Amino acid sequence: MRKIYMDYAATTPVDPRVLREMMPYFSKKFGNTMSLHSWGQESRKILEESRLTLADLMKARSGRVIFTGSATEANNQAIKGIALARRNRGKHIIVSSIEHHCVLNSVHWLQEQSFDVTYLPVDKCGMVSPADLDEAMRKDTILVSIMHANNEIGTIEPIQEIGKICGERDVLFHTDAVQTYGKIPIDVERMNVGLLTASAHKMYGPKGVGALFISEGVKIEPLLHGGGHEFGLRSSTVNIPGIVGFAAAVEIAKREMNAEAERLTRLRDRLIRGISDIKEAHLNGHSKLRLPNNVNFWFAFIEGESLVAQLDMRGLAASTGSACSSESLEPSHVLVAIGLKHEQAHGSLRLSLGRWSTMEEVQFALKVLPEAVGKLRSISPFKEGW
Amino acid sequence: MRKIYMDYAATTPVDPRVLREMMPYFSKKFGNTMSLHSWGQESRKILEESRLTLADLMKARSGRVIFTGSATEANNQAIKGIALARRNRGKHIIVSSIEHHCVLNSVHWLQEQSFDVTYLPVDKCGMVSPADLDEAMRKDTILVSIMHANNEIGTIEPIQEIGKICGERDVLFHTDAVQTYGKIPIDVERMNVGLLTASAHKMYGPKGVGALFISEGVKIEPLLHGGGHEFGLRSSTVNIPGIVGFAAAVEIAKREMNAEAERLTRLRDRLIRGISDIKEAHLNGHSKLRLPNNVNFWFAFIEGESLVAQLDMRGLAASTGSACSSESLEPSHVLVAIGLKHEQAHGSLRLSLGRWSTMEEVQFALKVLPEAVGKLRSISPFKEGW
Repeated sequence: MRKIYMDYAATTPVDPRVLREMMPYFSKKFGNTMSLHSWGQESRKILEESRLTLADLMKARSGRVIFTGSATEANNQAIKGIALARRNRGKHIIVSSIEHHCVLNSVHWLQEQSFDVTYLPVDKCGMVSPADLDEAMRKDTILVSIMHANNEIGTIEPIQEIGKICGERDVLFHTDAVQTYGKIPIDVERMNVGLLTASAHKMYGPKGVGALFISEGVKIEPLLHGGGHEFGLRSSTVNIPGIVGFAAAVEIAKREMNAEAERLTRLRDRLIRGISDIKEAHLNGHSKLRLPNNVNFWFAFIEGESLVAQLDMRGLAASTGSACSSESLEPSHVLVAIGLKHEQAHGSLRLSLGRWSTMEEVQFALKVLPEAVGKLRSISPFKEGW
Repeated sequence: MRKIYMDYAATTPVDPRVLREMMPYFSKKFGNTMSLHSWGQESRKILEESRLTLADLMKARSGRVIFTGSATEANNQAIKGIALARRNRGKHIIVSSIEHHCVLNSVHWLQEQSFDVTYLPVDKCGMVSPADLDEAMRKDTILVSIMHANNEIGTIEPIQEIGKICGERDVLFHTDAVQTYGKIPIDVERMNVGLLTASAHKMYGPKGVGALFISEGVKIEPLLHGGGHEFGLRSSTVNIPGIVGFAAAVEIAKREMNAEAERLTRLRDRLIRGISDIKEAHLNGHSKLRLPNNVNFWFAFIEGESLVAQLDMRGLAASTGSACSSESLEPSHVLVAIGLKHEQAHGSLRLSLGRWSTMEEVQFALKVLPEAVGKLRSISPFKEGW
């Protein structure tokens, strides 16, 4: 059976060009960056070059990029690391209510350590209101963390306005850019971003590597203590093959990102138009301020998990809620935050496109999706209750 | 120039057989383990198989192995995670004074959080005394963390006796087995080990993957909060290629470990005999209870960093102190703990052997090392002072 992947927001395959760059670093150029000999020197050199490559794609002209084992770690590091470093200055943190679980669960943990957290609401498109942020600011606010774009519904937040407000108040601003870095332009200086999280495996690099940009002069407590790698901020033997892969993925994105975003936007809009023709299918997220590769709908009378299973049987990989909460029975907190009832949120489907998506694949999806929805509705126990 | 690598304790190259196993998981079988569709199912299946593979090599018949981004993370997770989970039961932790920095710096951090830490001394061979441990035990002791073998001097600790004492006192026992897992036999039940840390890149697997064994019923607080991966203990998208590589490295170790340990012991002992012929060269660590691949000496009148540089110029990769502290000017805490004076500790050299080491390479080392030592001594400013 033909298998089509439309779950690029969950994870992407490693681009073969990226893998080719990584290959020499597994078994040949394998030195530990902490070693004094030439094997170690070679590894340190490529590490520092990779750092600059990543910084360049976010237009960071100062500060530094550190590498972590995942974006989850980078988000934990950013939020807990700043909170612990600034606890004497204040204990108030502001996040949006639609952050990824790794941000939300980090601030939940901080609440247990007596920090105070404000969760900003979003409108029905998933947008944070800069005015709400301005109002939530307090004298003891030490950090604002608002994602660049949402992983489930694709809404792109007004980061530049948010950054401006943070700048005026002299509050540090962290943004989780996992879904945007390498996909749409980022300028940490123009956006006044103090900390930014990125992930390799969401942009055709390998799993097991994340990055955190830290602007100049920002002090942060490490999460991992040990040998003092990454400027003392992230001890662990440095994963050179992974980092080389991340940098290679960034180089490709630099060249191809803009054209690819245009191409994906066309495919995305074709999908959205086609799915809108299905009865009782409702687009989630903003129609325009939206990731080029994200499509998210809720379908009345059906259950998202069953829909994913039906599509999988037909050869199409999709997701419901976010991949990270697939084992949870709770409806997506993002869909609840944009005002969906629980039964509506449970009927959601995300299709996310990527580098190997084609118009033909979009047409395939538009063929099998109505079939799957029709099949589930024909046997739906929910329909009566509505 | 011919280049010979004798720094396998710092990091190993990925075995080509391991890399071959990993390859399909980068770009083809790349699904997110949290995804519901068949890509995700395939990844979950290999994840669970890999867990069992690792458990088998440590003879764990219950409990579970979780995967982390590094052994540093696993050690941080074990120590901080237990301390935070048991803080209401007691706040006393016992470690040896020759643990890796990631253990020592984790307990330093806990001391700042009002935990109390006892650092056990070691004898001149680097051995912890079980009697000392017994004496250090208190009613509020919640954790003992003592490494299986030391990374610098290769001394193998009396883990089974240590485990027995912990068992009698009903205190949880963690061991950092980074230098032993896959190299010498481990039996977590016989050794009464409650938590065990292992690393892929020290045993011919990839960098960026560690593992923590947690015995049944042991509650531990997560370090990384997020999507709830790894039984809620280590959120982050699961690094399947890295984990597949770790498991492949373990499979090879299962088949080859014992014969390889014998082979390396012969090479090691040849090196030790040869180096002992150099004047004022002193073996560090135990002569018999020693890792099969570890050789560590201190040389009077010279400086280890210069010696590593001299050897590097001659094509031999070695280390002084541990790789992780290569940027530090402090003498190795391990060498100080076994009673060396600072100037002696500064003159240390570690040669660590591995899968591709040969008797010919040993002979090469025995040719260039006396040359390098002689050269440095001829220009040594220290010699006069002795």
